[in-house]
Amino acid sequence: MASKFIVIEGLEGAGKTTARDKVVETLRAQGIDDIVFTREPGGTPLAEKLRALTLDCQSSGDEAITDKAEVLMFYAARVQLVETVIKPALARGAWVVGDRHDLSTQAYQGGGRGIDAGLLNTLRDAVLGDFAPDLTLYLDVTPEVGLQRARARGELDRIEQESLDFFNRTRDRYLALAQSDPRIMTIDATQPLEQVIQQIGDVVTKWLKEQQ
Amino acid sequence: MASKFIVIEGLEGAGKTTARDKVVETLRAQGIDDIVFTREPGGTPLAEKLRALTLDCQSSGDEAITDKAEVLMFYAARVQLVETVIKPALARGAWVVGDRHDLSTQAYQGGGRGIDAGLLNTLRDAVLGDFAPDLTLYLDVTPEVGLQRARARGELDRIEQESLDFFNRTRDRYLALAQSDPRIMTIDATQPLEQVIQQIGDVVTKWLKEQQ
Repeated sequence: MASKFIVIEGLEGAGKTTARDKVVETLRAQGIDDIVFTREPGGTPLAEKLRALTLDCQSSGDEAITDKAEVLMFYAARVQLVETVIKPALARGAWVVGDRHDLSTQAYQGGGRGIDAGLLNTLRDAVLGDFAPDLTLYLDVTPEVGLQRARARGELDRIEQESLDFFNRTRDRYLALAQSDPRIMTIDATQPLEQVIQQIGDVVTKWLKEQQ
Repeated sequence: MASKFIVIEGLEGAGKTTARDKVVETLRAQGIDDIVFTREPGGTPLAEKLRALTLDCQSSGDEAITDKAEVLMFYAARVQLVETVIKPALARGAWVVGDRHDLSTQAYQGGGRGIDAGLLNTLRDAVLGDFAPDLTLYLDVTPEVGLQRARARGELDRIEQESLDFFNRTRDRYLALAQSDPRIMTIDATQPLEQVIQQIGDVVTKWLKEQQ
């Protein structure tokens, strides 16, 4: 089977790390051992610097970063990651498992922040062409559940201090995009952890069989 | 007269600083005193950090920056400058005189580096819309003349070490774009300095009269 790019998406506290571990376990059970991990925004030295620069601007308050500049920086980081890490890995036969990818920009910036979806689609098409994950697992939780989990882990960065409305808009966009794209599978991540893990294993195993 | 955005463009060593001084002198002679200066890439704290990041990547060799990432970073810096500095200045009635703007990206990245002009136009339209300088003075020199002047000033950065072919392609694109856009005036900057300065004064004075 040709190598694939699998992405895990969802709000903070949705359980992306647990999901990643289960995806990797499922791939290994099928004899797939050469797996490259990515996270976005970031994943290369330049992309990590761009990530830090956007977070600095948001937290220091020295200079308000404009929505468009932020989105362009995210796409700069993304195209750098895709061209220098993801595509070369896939080309040599490795599988790639990503913590977030373009869907996060569509959901957080497009849905949460209200940036024009047309602009985001134009940028994505212009810089990524038709490159896209083969499978995306969207872990769906309500913001209340996700934020409670993230707070319990002591993770309260800029994003998590934003309003519940922001996260509700982000979730709504995630759900709408997941419904419109058959390559995105929605997992109900408010279920008890064991059931979530079980479901991820089932979904990935079934999907792998369909790819053969 | 409504305030305007005037940009000075050209290869390294074309005489942009001298031209800027003459533009400012000409504006002041007409009673225009509130003038904001910009330089690109850069011009805001964030934009300067993006400029430094692209130069770091080029010089350190740790990680080759992809063409698309570089262009997206330039546009991030540009939209940040336009939205937080240039447009607010114009809105309060100040004039803006810029050392480089979008034409540099079209010429250096599009012409010199060979990045698809369609991609550059898509990015520009998506993030800047129809915002553009009211007047651009393109100082035309051959690469040989420009580089000799730049070397005499001890300015030999990354760009200036690139091949003469690169600068010839950049100049060709500058000339082609200047011919296709009536808002771009080409100045023969290989003439003796006094004549160049004289011509800039004449061009700007005539243009100002036409705006009234």
